[in-house]
Amino acid sequence: MQDDLARCKAAVSACFDTVLAPLGTMPVEEGMRYALDGGKRLRAFLVMEGAALHGIAPAQSVWAAAAIEALHAYSLVHDDLPCMDDDDLRRGQPTVHKRWDEATAVLVGDALQTLAFELLTRPELGVSSQIRVELIASLARSSGVQGMVLGQAQDIAAETSATPLSLEEITVLQGNKTGALIEWSARAGAIMAGADPEPLGTYARALGLAFQIQDDILDVEGDVEKTGKAVGKDADAGKATFVSLLGLEGAKTRARSLVDEACAALSPYGTRAEPLRDVARFVISRET
Amino acid sequence: MQDDLARCKAAVSACFDTVLAPLGTMPVEEGMRYALDGGKRLRAFLVMEGAALHGIAPAQSVWAAAAIEALHAYSLVHDDLPCMDDDDLRRGQPTVHKRWDEATAVLVGDALQTLAFELLTRPELGVSSQIRVELIASLARSSGVQGMVLGQAQDIAAETSATPLSLEEITVLQGNKTGALIEWSARAGAIMAGADPEPLGTYARALGLAFQIQDDILDVEGDVEKTGKAVGKDADAGKATFVSLLGLEGAKTRARSLVDEACAALSPYGTRAEPLRDVARFVISRET
Repeated sequence: MQDDLARCKAAVSACFDTVLAPLGTMPVEEGMRYALDGGKRLRAFLVMEGAALHGIAPAQSVWAAAAIEALHAYSLVHDDLPCMDDDDLRRGQPTVHKRWDEATAVLVGDALQTLAFELLTRPELGVSSQIRVELIASLARSSGVQGMVLGQAQDIAAETSATPLSLEEITVLQGNKTGALIEWSARAGAIMAGADPEPLGTYARALGLAFQIQDDILDVEGDVEKTGKAVGKDADAGKATFVSLLGLEGAKTRARSLVDEACAALSPYGTRAEPLRDVARFVISRET
Repeated sequence: MQDDLARCKAAVSACFDTVLAPLGTMPVEEGMRYALDGGKRLRAFLVMEGAALHGIAPAQSVWAAAAIEALHAYSLVHDDLPCMDDDDLRRGQPTVHKRWDEATAVLVGDALQTLAFELLTRPELGVSSQIRVELIASLARSSGVQGMVLGQAQDIAAETSATPLSLEEITVLQGNKTGALIEWSARAGAIMAGADPEPLGTYARALGLAFQIQDDILDVEGDVEKTGKAVGKDADAGKATFVSLLGLEGAKTRARSLVDEACAALSPYGTRAEPLRDVARFVISRET
C-alpha cells in the first residue's frame, strides 16, 4: 500500500503543479499552494483505488482525486480560522491565517472550493459530460449544507449545547462532517466507470466512522510531535467524543469492528481490493 | 423593465424557496435564507433576459439565474466579515456575522458557493450535460482565483500598498472583482442556447465597469438611507477610486459613455434587447 500511496501522492502533486503554475505570487495564490501541499492524501487514494478497480486509468482519476483534495483543503483552511476551531498548527506547520492573515485564509478557502468544482470539468478526466455532472452534483450534495457544512454547523451547535451529544447524534454529525466526503471519494471511481458505487459506499461509511473514532483516540493518546496539531483539545473542552461515550477500549473495539465491516464490503472485488483493505487497517493503526 | 425585473425577482425567490425548503432552522440554514433574500437581482435579470433573447424559457433560465445570485450572495457574506470589509449593514439589514456570528457567516458563504454549483446540475435547467459543464467551468473560472477572488485579493493588496492604483490597474481589478460575474450572467443564456455569447459579453464588460464607477460615485454622493450601507468609506480610507482618478464629473461622463457602448453591443438583437439597454441606463441612474 505504501508504494501505491506514494504514487498517488506524486500524481496528485503533479496535477496541482499543472493547475497552480499559471497563478502568481499574491498571498491568496501562495496560500493556495501552501494549503494544497502535503497531507495524507487519503481521499485521493480512495478515488484512485476505486477507479483502478473499475479499469479507469490513473491519468484520468487523478483529476477527481485532486478535486476532493482541493475541497478537503478548503474545509481545513476555513475550519482552522479563529472564529471556527482557532488552530495555529496544521500538519506541523502554521495554519494559513497564521502564516498570512484571516482575510487571506477566507479567500484561499473560497478559491480552493471553486477549484474543486473546476477540476471536475477538466478534459483530462476523460469521462462523458453526463458523468461529470453526476460527480459535480454529488460533490455539491456531500460538501454543502446537506453534507459537510451541516456537520460543521452541528459540531459548533454541540459545543454550546448544555447536554452532550448521544452516540447516535455524534455518529450522524461525523457522518456529515467527515463521512460524506470520504464516501464521495470511494464512490467516484465506480461512478466514472458507470458501475454500481454501492459496495464502495458501504466500505466508505464504515471507514469514515472508524477514521473519526481514531481521531478521537489520537486526541487522547496522540503525540503532538507526530500528529502535528494540538492534542487533548476535545477532552479539555468537555466535548462528547467517541472516547468519552464508549471509553478508550470501547472506542478501539468499535473502530476495529468497523474496519472488519469495511473490508467485508469489498468482497465483490476479491483480492484486487487489498490496497483498500490495507487503508482501512492503516486508518486505525495510524499515529497522525 | 420594472415589470420584467419584478417577474425575475419573483421567479428567483420561488426557486430559492424550493431549494431551501428541505433545510432546517440551524443558524447556517437560516443564514442562507437571510443572505439569499432581497437584493437588486441584477445578475439574475441579465441571465434571464440573455436567455429570453435566445428562446430559452424562464422556467429553465431561472435556475442559472439563481446560481449566479447564490454565488454573488456568498461573496457578499464573506466580503462583509470583520477580517475583510468589516461591514455591519447590507441592504439596510445587519450582515450575517452581526445577526449571528462569524463562524456562521463563514459557513453560510461556503454553503452558498456550493449551492451555486449545485443549482447548475439541476434537471430543471433543461440543457445538455455538455452545456451544463460549460456553464460550471466558466462560473468556476469567473469566480475563482483567476476571477472574482483574484479581484478581491487585488483590492486588499491595494489597501495596504504605498502607491495608489492607476486607472488601468483599478479597471483590471474591478473587471475581476465584479466584472467577471456580470459577464458570466450576460453570456449564460447564449451558452444555454448554444449560440455565440460574444455580443452579450461585450455588453457586459462595459456594463460591469459602468456599474462599478456608479458604485464609486454613490460612495461619494450616496445617501446611507437609500444605499442601505455606509457611505464615504472608500474616500475616508484614501483608496483610489474611479472618482478619485477621474473626478466626479469625469467619472459620470465615463459611465455614460460605457452605457452607450453597452447598448451599441446589443445591435444584433435589435429592439428585443431593449430591457437590457434599460438595465444599462438604470445602472448609472440608480441611487442604491
